[in-house]
Parts: sequence; C-alpha cells; structure tokens
Amino acid sequence: MADAAPPEAPTPADFTFAPLSPVSFLSRAAAVFGERTAIVDGELTFTYAEFHQRSGQLTAALADLGVQPGDRVAALCANSHVMLELHHGVPGFGAVLVPLNIRLSEAELGYILEHSGATLLVATAEFAEAARTIADAAGIRVIVAGGADDEYEALLTTATAPVWRDADERGLLAINYTSGTTGRPKGVMYHHRGAYLQSLAMAYHTGIGPGSAYLWTLPMFHCDGWCFPWALTAAGATHVCLRAIDTAQIWRHLTEDGITHFSAAPTVLTMIAEDPAAATLDHTVHATTGGAPPSPSLLARMADLGVEVTHLYGLTETFGPIAVNQWQPEWDAGDADARALLKARQGIGNISAGLLRVVTPDGDDVPADGATEGELVARGNNVMLGYYRDPDATAGATVNGWLRTGDVAVMHPDGYAEIRDRSKDVIISGGENIASVEVERVLDSHPDVVESAVVARPDDRWGEVPVAYVTVRHGADLCADALVEFAREHLARFKVPKHVVFAELPKTSTGKIQKNVLRRQVEQGDAS
Amino acid sequence: MADAAPPEAPTPADFTFAPLSPVSFLSRAAAVFGERTAIVDGELTFTYAEFHQRSGQLTAALADLGVQPGDRVAALCANSHVMLELHHGVPGFGAVLVPLNIRLSEAELGYILEHSGATLLVATAEFAEAARTIADAAGIRVIVAGGADDEYEALLTTATAPVWRDADERGLLAINYTSGTTGRPKGVMYHHRGAYLQSLAMAYHTGIGPGSAYLWTLPMFHCDGWCFPWALTAAGATHVCLRAIDTAQIWRHLTEDGITHFSAAPTVLTMIAEDPAAATLDHTVHATTGGAPPSPSLLARMADLGVEVTHLYGLTETFGPIAVNQWQPEWDAGDADARALLKARQGIGNISAGLLRVVTPDGDDVPADGATEGELVARGNNVMLGYYRDPDATAGATVNGWLRTGDVAVMHPDGYAEIRDRSKDVIISGGENIASVEVERVLDSHPDVVESAVVARPDDRWGEVPVAYVTVRHGADLCADALVEFAREHLARFKVPKHVVFAELPKTSTGKIQKNVLRRQVEQGDAS
Repeated sequence: MADAAPPEAPTPADFTFAPLSPVSFLSRAAAVFGERTAIVDGELTFTYAEFHQRSGQLTAALADLGVQPGDRVAALCANSHVMLELHHGVPGFGAVLVPLNIRLSEAELGYILEHSGATLLVATAEFAEAARTIADAAGIRVIVAGGADDEYEALLTTATAPVWRDADERGLLAINYTSGTTGRPKGVMYHHRGAYLQSLAMAYHTGIGPGSAYLWTLPMFHCDGWCFPWALTAAGATHVCLRAIDTAQIWRHLTEDGITHFSAAPTVLTMIAEDPAAATLDHTVHATTGGAPPSPSLLARMADLGVEVTHLYGLTETFGPIAVNQWQPEWDAGDADARALLKARQGIGNISAGLLRVVTPDGDDVPADGATEGELVARGNNVMLGYYRDPDATAGATVNGWLRTGDVAVMHPDGYAEIRDRSKDVIISGGENIASVEVERVLDSHPDVVESAVVARPDDRWGEVPVAYVTVRHGADLCADALVEFAREHLARFKVPKHVVFAELPKTSTGKIQKNVLRRQVEQGDAS
Repeated sequence: MADAAPPEAPTPADFTFAPLSPVSFLSRAAAVFGERTAIVDGELTFTYAEFHQRSGQLTAALADLGVQPGDRVAALCANSHVMLELHHGVPGFGAVLVPLNIRLSEAELGYILEHSGATLLVATAEFAEAARTIADAAGIRVIVAGGADDEYEALLTTATAPVWRDADERGLLAINYTSGTTGRPKGVMYHHRGAYLQSLAMAYHTGIGPGSAYLWTLPMFHCDGWCFPWALTAAGATHVCLRAIDTAQIWRHLTEDGITHFSAAPTVLTMIAEDPAAATLDHTVHATTGGAPPSPSLLARMADLGVEVTHLYGLTETFGPIAVNQWQPEWDAGDADARALLKARQGIGNISAGLLRVVTPDGDDVPADGATEGELVARGNNVMLGYYRDPDATAGATVNGWLRTGDVAVMHPDGYAEIRDRSKDVIISGGENIASVEVERVLDSHPDVVESAVVARPDDRWGEVPVAYVTVRHGADLCADALVEFAREHLARFKVPKHVVFAELPKTSTGKIQKNVLRRQVEQGDAS
C-alpha cells in the first residue's frame, strides 16, 4: 500500500479526528436514510434528503442575509419543520441559535433579544405579530415562516450555495435562556461537543431507531428539545411536529400515526390520561418524563394505557436530561408501590454524562444512605459552558468545580440520586423538614385527585406549615376534611396539610406547576 | 447563588469538560451498578464494585512493578476476568495495552513484543509456557494469572493504593497488531476518544443494558473485543467469559445462563448451528457477526434457532465495526432471499463513525449505483492514530485524508456500501485474517523453494483456508509434508497452508504471478 501513497500524504490527524457536532448527524442521515420520512408537520412531510437540502438552503440564506459566523439568530417558533431546520442550518453555518420561549411576554422576549445581541429573528406565522413588535424594538430583521407571504420559504427558494462550516467542538452552538425563578433570564451556553454526546445518550436510553416516530409534545425551544432534534436525526427516526398541546390531537397521533416515543412533563401526561379519548393503545409507546417525578397513580394510569414511562431529570444547564432513572430488571419483581418509589428517583448520570454527586455546602459527598440531604451536582461534557455575558452567575453556579443544580437530594446506597425537594420547596415546620413532593404524592394517590401542589404558609407557632392546592377529578365529590383525613392515614402528622384549596393549578409553558404563584397567593391570605 | 461562590471560583472549563476515555465507564458502573454481576468467568463471579476495585488494585500493582505512564503492557490471555481488568487497569494507569493474538507462533509473538517495546507481559495460565519463552527471549518480566502459583492474584492482593490517571483523550490507549496485507504485523494505535465513541456506538446499535448478558465468543484480543469490554461496562451488562470456543459449552450458556447477546464470525455461527445441542431457544438472542457476510442459509438457520443476526463490518484500524447493516423496518416485508441480500451488505457508518465512502484510486466518489466498484474508505474519530513506529505505512494507508480499507466495494443508491471483493491477498479463516504475503515469505525462505503463491480455498467450516502453489528448486527433493512442517515452525497454525501444489506459477508478460488464475484452478477443484 505504501507505493500508492500520494506525495502529499496527509498526517494521521487528517483521518482520525472529526469535531463532535450534532449537526453532523444530518448529513449522515441524508446519505443513509435519505428516502425515509424525517419530518411530518401537518400536511407537510420531508424526507431526510429534503431536510438536509432545506437546512443547506437555510445556511445559504443566512449568508445571503449577511449573517456572520458567531452571530446569534433567535427563533420564536412552534414545533415545526422550520424549528428543526434552524437547529441544523444555524449551527451548521457557524452561527448561534437562540430559541425563545413562545409563552414569554414581549418585554421578556425583548430583554433576551437585547441581551443575546441577536441580529436576526425567525418566527413561525403563529407568532408573527409578537415577532415583528420585538424585532422592530430591537432594530433587527425578522423573517416569518408560513402564512400568506412566506418570507422564510422565499429566502430558501432563492438561496445560493450552501455554506456548511466545520464546528469548533467546544464552540458556541446555542444560547438557551432559563425561565429564571428569580430575576432576569440567564443565557445558558451550549457547545457542540455537549449536544453531540447528549444526543447519543438520548438515542441510547430511549432505544430510537429508523422504525421510531417521535411526537413532539416537548417544546423544541426548551433546552433545544433535550437534544432530540439531533438524536432523532442520528437514529433516522421520524419527527412528528405538534404545534400546540392539544390532547385530542395527541390521541389521534398516538392511535393513528404509529407514534412510538414522546416526552412530556408529568402534568402533561396527566392531561393526556384525562382526555376523553384516552384508551389502551394497541402498541407500546415509550414516554420520557421530567420536571417532576411521576406519581405512582400516574404511572399506573399510563401503564394501563400502554405507555411505558422513563423518568429523566436535568436542567437547562445540562442540555436537558443529564440523569436517567435507569431501570434494573430485578425491580420488576416489586409491587406497584415499590416500583413507583424506585421510578420516582431521578437516578444516575446518563451514559455520556458520567457520575452525579450529592454534596454538602463545602462540596463533600454526603453519605449514600438515602437519608442525608445535600445538593445534587454535575460536571463534564454534558454541562453548559457558562452563562452568556454573566461571569458572576457562572462562577456562582459551581462548587469545587461541579455545577450546582440547586436541588436538594439524597444519594441512595445503590448510587441512585433522589431529589427530596427543589430547594425552595422544602417546608420547615417545627424544626422538621417536609418534602412537598412527598405530601403531593400522597394527595395524588387519592382516587378523586387529578394533581396537587403543596407550599409553605408562614406560621407563628411552627415557622411554616404545608398548604395544599388540589385539582379534583371532574364530577367527584371530595371535601377538604376527607382529603386531610386521607393524608393523615399516610403521613406523619406534621406533614399533613393544614389547609386545602381546591383550584386549577397555575403552570408554565412547559407544564411545570408555578409554585411561586401559589406562594404569593398564600402570602396574600389565600389560605388562612 | 452568586453569594455562595467560593473565592477560588473555577473557570467554566472545570465543570464542562471531561476527557473521553472508555475507562471512565467502569467508575460509573461501580457507583450505579455496583451490586450487579459484572463478570462470570467459570466458577468466578465479580460485581461491578469488585471489578472496579480489582482494576484499581491492578493499577497499584503496575506502579509497584515500576511501570511508567506510556509504557506498553502486553497481554497473552484467554477471554477472562484478567483480560477485562487489563482493559481498564492498564489504560486507567496511563499505560498502553498490547493484546496479543493467542493463535500466533512464538516467533510472531516475539516480533510483536520487540516491536511494541513492551516492558511487561501478563498471561493467563493456559499460555504460561509460551509467555515465559517469549518474555525470556525479550528480557522482560512475565506475570502469570491463574494456575497453582497465581502471580497475578498475589500482586493484586499485596498492591498498595490505586493510581488512576486522567486520560489525554487523543493519547495512546492500546496497540493492536494486525496481520495486515504486507507481511509483518503492524501496530494499530488506538486512542481513548475513539474507543469511547466506538463503545457508545456498540451500546446503541446492540441495545445492551443492565438486563443483558454477553457471551464472550469473540476474542478480547481482537480489536480490543470490538470495544465491548467497555461498551458492556457502560451498559451495566454482564460479561460471560468463554476461555475457548467450545460449541457444546456455548449452548449450555445460551440455554442455561440467560445470554442475550454474543458476537461471532459467520464460520463460528455455522459451528454453533451445527452443534448436536442446537435447538430453538426460548428467548431471542442477538448476535453480531463480521469478517464475512452471513449467508442466506446461515441467516435462516439462526432465525430458526431464535438468534437475530446483525451484520457489522470493520478493521483493526477502525476499532472493530465501523459499519453496521442498520436494518430498516420496511425491509421486513421482503422474502427471505431479499432480506438476506440486504443483510449481506456491510451497510453504513455507525452512529458515531459518520459517513463511509467508496472511491476511485484518486479518492473521488464512485457513482452510488450499486455496480461501480471502488475502495471503501473511512475517516473520523473511530479511526486509528496510525501504525506504531511505521510512518510510511501510516501515510500509505490513506487517500486524500481518508483511511483505505483495502476492500473493493460498491455504493448502493440508498447509501449502503457492499463489499464486492476483499483485498484479494487477505484470506479470512475462522474469522482471522491471514496475509498471503506473510505465508509466502515463510515458504520462500525454505532453501528448496524458488517461489510461492498462497490463495484462498473456500471451506465449509472455516470460510476459507490457505492453499500454496510452490515452485521447487531444480533437483531438490521436497515433499508437501516437509514444507507444511517447516511452515508450522514459523507461523500460527491457522496460517499454515492446508494443501500444497507443486507447479510452475502462471505469470503475466511482466512477470507478475497471476493469482486470479490460481484462484480459478482452486475453484475448479485443483486443491481439494
């Protein structure tokens, strides 16, 4: 073979290195899954060859528009082919994607546009008006996709040659702004290497392949859709876009479109289970859930419907799910309650994330006894580069070189972590800690309860006492005394809610219950 | 959170980077699969906690023995807990593993010891005698594991503190010697990053998890067992060691030990199917095969037995299987012959390997028409760093920055590659490569031989076996048996010609031996 070496024989580095970038999955999919259906978005469908071609046209359009590598391109988009193309074309061109939460106010969106320094905004037609308003205020160009005058499609049609750039694997891929429980949103910086490895982990843990069809119930703007825009492309699976959460529509997709996988917060799973169309599926569907542990009653209900639930856990700062409740086969032997307790644990670092730890304020491991509380921390490739333009917040996010999650957890003897409470959800009553999730799990197990949220009410005698907000099943006849009595049967006395409010629960766009809203109501005398 | 930042707040790099090394999977497995069975090796079993602890003791033993980071540690081992520990302890310590093919002759092994500059040899008891002989000749220390005086176990028992070193991800992990096509074995340099990504790809494509049990029919010395020593550990699966190929034993494992996965060349699959104990399994077993495409009749036979076969393809230079015959669900609709044709294709680059290409001698893509032949080439992270101490061979291994596989292939319109003809001078016997030139060089060194040519003869049991055409010096009195005996002294048994034909060799006008003519003669029954 040496005879055949060209005079300009390359050095080893040429053939033994490729930068890790999730964008690379698309060219591979176009080559080897070219005729497979990549995207279903209403009446539109695109093959992987078309998806790749259109994303290439998008890179050309970006060049035509004068976008430079490193520029930030913001997206105010429904789950759509447009958002999938942006996830590939923008970083593939070398620019940085800034996905915007569609539920934010114009003031909040304007802040993010300004803070990120985005020079271009792409919006789907649903959000054209808000997009024009905030882009005008920021003095930047807006491109609307869809509708009567489809600017996005026109740009793609007239675009010149694609401009794909090799990634710097530790370079900036996207900035995902956190909803920010306190203060202004912070811009979480994603790098190519992290998104690539997280995509492989998601593909591995969910078992997706060319035969899979994923229903996009999870918003793509949320942690870049937990990296599924890239993971599904790596697997050659089909993206089925859902532009808005509509449980009747979800059931049509589940029953008629061969959906095999989807992701949703427990509250969204509850809505799906409560829909009148809910019925046992004729094939197993795999759901990944996160944001809160699924309750035993929800798990039982989903199992009845033919939906297998995997519990994942993560933060915007960790590319979505850095932890997975990796199920172990021996656990099948337990009864439903034992299985639900095991499944409620956030679990272990995913296959590419390495180890998670639970540490003291000084950064030392707590004993792995399933009882001693500490803070869950993470590190490694599946962690953000830091907060954009905010070195102080970045420095404050770590302890001894590990990223703080802000979540209070215990480490079980088997190495699985379990969150006992989001830091703010610890209720301290008479010197005893109460994990609000523990109380909620009991309330949720009542047959007449759809869901519940437990928060602290300041109390002169005990410091704080737990108050429960509860949504009751339609048509049920449940009174507060009966529910409190039920709770007493399952909980230590100090953990039993001192007051029950029957109400719809306020939620974020991603389906998380807004406990801060409930706390404010409590402070304003709602539950006294 | 900023208030809690320690004064020595780390920079982002601290929490957002971990070197990619397959060794890292073991500490994760010890933490989260600690009580699961990691290894079954005859009567011995070890949990993941024990596997990790023992590998740590091995790092300590290496330090005690004076091994330095970067030193080469050779292994002459059966598939065993020892070999698995070496795969983690040696690179975990920062040294370089040199797995030796147990079927090589002492002369061949001696060459590799010398070329690699190994300073230590670890052998399992089956190979103690050969190990002592070659280590003595090389003047290096040998440690024998097992047997009456278990030196390995004694070293682990008395070892002091573990010495785990962080990897340089593009640094040297192992050197795997290949028989190659040009005579002397070449040392293929594996890097940590490549083995990590290949491990993730193997875990993804085989769907292994904590419920899986993998039977080690594949030799661990062969491409580091296709990276399964690490992939299975990442998945928390069980390694079931098979110290020698024994089909009755394989059937006992398949029927009694809950085996879910194994890997074997088609010739080994055939032996398994032909064993008297062969019977339909009560659970599906997943087999990955490579080295040659599985035949339609073999696929049908394996399906009858309950074994699902995935066809993989790769080289020592690509960490084992860089290609996977990724099955697409629509293909199930074809009849058995159509399915077998599809399955015979080597397929697509695996999920972390990127694209494969089929190119002209100038490095341009051939048309993807399923007919135009070219050479299959690869590049990226799943490709070796180069050949150890052989820059010429390294340079000669590439064309335009892509690694040449030496295999003649076509590219189908759907992006799947199919090998039409292997590099013609490689004979694959029982899954092992034989370089015909290497055999010829030995035959030619016999004083009575003028010249020789070695070609493959198809063989039901081994796939192929080598046949030698030999021209004898005028007046010499050499018989076939004597020449075979001579070859045995210099070559591994599987490389020794199974048949010798004394004849004038057919040549072109320019004097090149026409092996195609000899191959045709063999096919017509010349050497049966």
